[in-house]
Amino acid sequence: MAQDKKLVEEITAMDEDFAKWYTDVVRKADLADYSSVKGCMIIRPYGYAIWENIQKELDRRFKETGHENVYMPLFIPETLLQKEKDHVEGFAPEVAWVTHGGSEELAEKLCIRPTSETLFCQHYANIIGSYRDLPKLYNQWANVVRWEKTTRPFLRTTEFLWQEGHTAHATKEQAEEETLRMLNVYADFCEDFLAIPVIKGKKTEKEKFAGATETYTIESLMHDGQALQSGTSHNFGDKFAKAFNIRYLDKENRHQYVYQTSWGVTTRLIGALIMVHGDDSGLVLPPRVAPTQLVIIPIASHKGGVMEKAEEIFNQLKPLVRVKLDDSDKNPGWKFSEHEMRGVPLRLEIGPKDIEEGHAVLVRRDSREKIFIDLNELTTKVPELLDDIQDALFTKALKHREEHTSIATSLDEIKESLDKKPGFIKTMWCGKRECEEKVKEVAKASSRCMPFDESSIGDKCAICNAKAEMVIVWGRAY
Amino acid sequence: MAQDKKLVEEITAMDEDFAKWYTDVVRKADLADYSSVKGCMIIRPYGYAIWENIQKELDRRFKETGHENVYMPLFIPETLLQKEKDHVEGFAPEVAWVTHGGSEELAEKLCIRPTSETLFCQHYANIIGSYRDLPKLYNQWANVVRWEKTTRPFLRTTEFLWQEGHTAHATKEQAEEETLRMLNVYADFCEDFLAIPVIKGKKTEKEKFAGATETYTIESLMHDGQALQSGTSHNFGDKFAKAFNIRYLDKENRHQYVYQTSWGVTTRLIGALIMVHGDDSGLVLPPRVAPTQLVIIPIASHKGGVMEKAEEIFNQLKPLVRVKLDDSDKNPGWKFSEHEMRGVPLRLEIGPKDIEEGHAVLVRRDSREKIFIDLNELTTKVPELLDDIQDALFTKALKHREEHTSIATSLDEIKESLDKKPGFIKTMWCGKRECEEKVKEVAKASSRCMPFDESSIGDKCAICNAKAEMVIVWGRAY
Repeated sequence: MAQDKKLVEEITAMDEDFAKWYTDVVRKADLADYSSVKGCMIIRPYGYAIWENIQKELDRRFKETGHENVYMPLFIPETLLQKEKDHVEGFAPEVAWVTHGGSEELAEKLCIRPTSETLFCQHYANIIGSYRDLPKLYNQWANVVRWEKTTRPFLRTTEFLWQEGHTAHATKEQAEEETLRMLNVYADFCEDFLAIPVIKGKKTEKEKFAGATETYTIESLMHDGQALQSGTSHNFGDKFAKAFNIRYLDKENRHQYVYQTSWGVTTRLIGALIMVHGDDSGLVLPPRVAPTQLVIIPIASHKGGVMEKAEEIFNQLKPLVRVKLDDSDKNPGWKFSEHEMRGVPLRLEIGPKDIEEGHAVLVRRDSREKIFIDLNELTTKVPELLDDIQDALFTKALKHREEHTSIATSLDEIKESLDKKPGFIKTMWCGKRECEEKVKEVAKASSRCMPFDESSIGDKCAICNAKAEMVIVWGRAY
Repeated sequence: MAQDKKLVEEITAMDEDFAKWYTDVVRKADLADYSSVKGCMIIRPYGYAIWENIQKELDRRFKETGHENVYMPLFIPETLLQKEKDHVEGFAPEVAWVTHGGSEELAEKLCIRPTSETLFCQHYANIIGSYRDLPKLYNQWANVVRWEKTTRPFLRTTEFLWQEGHTAHATKEQAEEETLRMLNVYADFCEDFLAIPVIKGKKTEKEKFAGATETYTIESLMHDGQALQSGTSHNFGDKFAKAFNIRYLDKENRHQYVYQTSWGVTTRLIGALIMVHGDDSGLVLPPRVAPTQLVIIPIASHKGGVMEKAEEIFNQLKPLVRVKLDDSDKNPGWKFSEHEMRGVPLRLEIGPKDIEEGHAVLVRRDSREKIFIDLNELTTKVPELLDDIQDALFTKALKHREEHTSIATSLDEIKESLDKKPGFIKTMWCGKRECEEKVKEVAKASSRCMPFDESSIGDKCAICNAKAEMVIVWGRAY
């Protein structure tokens, strides 16, 4: 019953109400469901399968760059959280507190990790003794909790899943190198695997992570012109090392503090996938991350030979792509909509007439293009088509970002741009916090980053007209 | 420094103090470390790599049997936990409570999941409408918290990692079939992959999971003769379905309650690996679960050609086995002990003389046997040797279990056996709870299960002498 009703109701059109469209897709593509705890979601099998593909690919890239996985406790004692001043100020207001275990009140309350810097630091202080112990390149896949006021599935939830890398190095330079290495791992992953173009940049002083000396970010642009911070990489310098006394003996037998980094991405990447590639028929998944890359739909399956041929094709393609044969008793039209809603990149239709003519009909989810492919050529053409779709989605998203990126030379222009045609706005900036705050207040630019590799577009700060050497990108953030 | 001291101190001998031996191995094989929260451990990279291998293999077996992964919230509202009476009575005394989020006190306190039946049930009530929606075969990999009084790394910790399968079926028979299917998946996994022989059986009424109609278990015997419950599979009948109103319309359009199961294994399996296979030199890992299956140690590596040959062998073996080349500057003897401590199944030594003679020296971790293998035969012989080790470890563990399994016909005999030579004790049992409690009290038999496929060994209950048809296995449990 629940199933049958689902597709009859249409999803809201993107242009009509983007926020509602988003929630409709999350629900109707069976990605997530609400739970009885405010702000916590249930990640359903289809949504979780996407997360598993993200995990698998990222984990491979982390291991390739020398990282090892560990697991730290869920709880942080209050006194431990308080050890680094900036860090506790940033996180204390949004943590959940455990005050009772079993029937007893705890002597010291425990916070549920909002992030695990303090736990890693304490462990590093115990296990690092000599320069031979460095670098430590650890990562963990875990759940974290931040008590959010407003939540939306995948984008901002009270509990979310993520990975957090935490590394310790002998020198400042090595820490900076690692911070940027991981930012690049994230950027390459987003562009190659999720087909999401990103801007790599640095956060402003005001927007840095609590306790970091530098925060780098990858920012992507959603279909509605809002920005999404998609991953961050932080350089801590020796701030945490000093607060937690993490020292090593160098080759000359002198005590030195270590230099640390941390970096993370979360289940919000699934939100980015939805909002970058989706359309009015639902989700559109890039083939590399799609749980099902091709779905086979038999037409007139009761007719002799159709199911046999469908199964034959299934078996042929199975070693090459993630393929599914939909042999349920729903009618083909229904199946088309259902798999479109779920964003399956390619649909293969096979019916008596196709068999007679020796071809199959392939329909691309991204362009709706219908392609006839000789049955003998499926094993070569299907992987090629999937590559094409992957590339086309990236190109389309990049074009969208370019069309929604503009240059402004005054605060009024920034505001006007963001109000009329939301997107990324580039300006020159003097670097002063008061200008940054003015843009945030007047133009509601909640997102900003200083992009790498951007050539100057002027010499004056767009806000105060003072001499400026930095380019900054403004946007409105999710 | 920390590294250098480690192997100088010897680990406690098993026979001297088994509990201390266990903790020594956990620490010195770098499996886990203590954290600042009582009862919570840090799983270090080597321990976590073992868990990843366990996860990967089990996850494959779950998916092969049609299961899908999902993710449920960490929190359970107090009222939700209370919905099934037996369940809340079983778990409420040992849960951790979140009472504050951010700076505010919560209107309803939230427990941190000790297990997620209630969350799955609520979700199932929402998504199951018709017989077409069944079965639902869900699993999740997650962390759970139980406020334990006495804890030991891996065996019993306040927070632990596990998987919990939760399924819903149209009929009672299908639920029972699933319960036993998953028990068999666990048993096969333990025996084939971890080389741990298990007894499959049913728990007594008294020992059932809180809310289950039947609980099945796999029990394994540790080196010290104590039993370890290594996995459980529960049949819930329609108890939870009635408490949570999980109903579906059958083909005749009638409302029916679903029948449910749940099943789980935890990071305690790593404790089992240590205590079944370990010896006085540390961990002994079965090749299938070992993060490193073979370690290459160059001898006199400064001599011409040694490192080149070691690297050549590494590259030859890499596609076939999980191999590591230890090219650190420690001396070979040190490396031998270190990799023995970590339980690496095979060590390959290669020095100038070996190269001259065209062979390598292989040393098995399990038997210490030294084997000379022609360099041309490494790619065939190494995988064979690893299979041999896997089999030998299973055979050895099975022999140990058989030697520590006895039959008793009276309460005195049970007590005497358990006191003198701990192990499994089989008796006949009338099925009455008072006899069970007597054995528990007098003989401290904290473990018991009714094994499958056991032929009768008498006709009278060993405790009360009444007529008895059931065989039961007693033991002392971890």
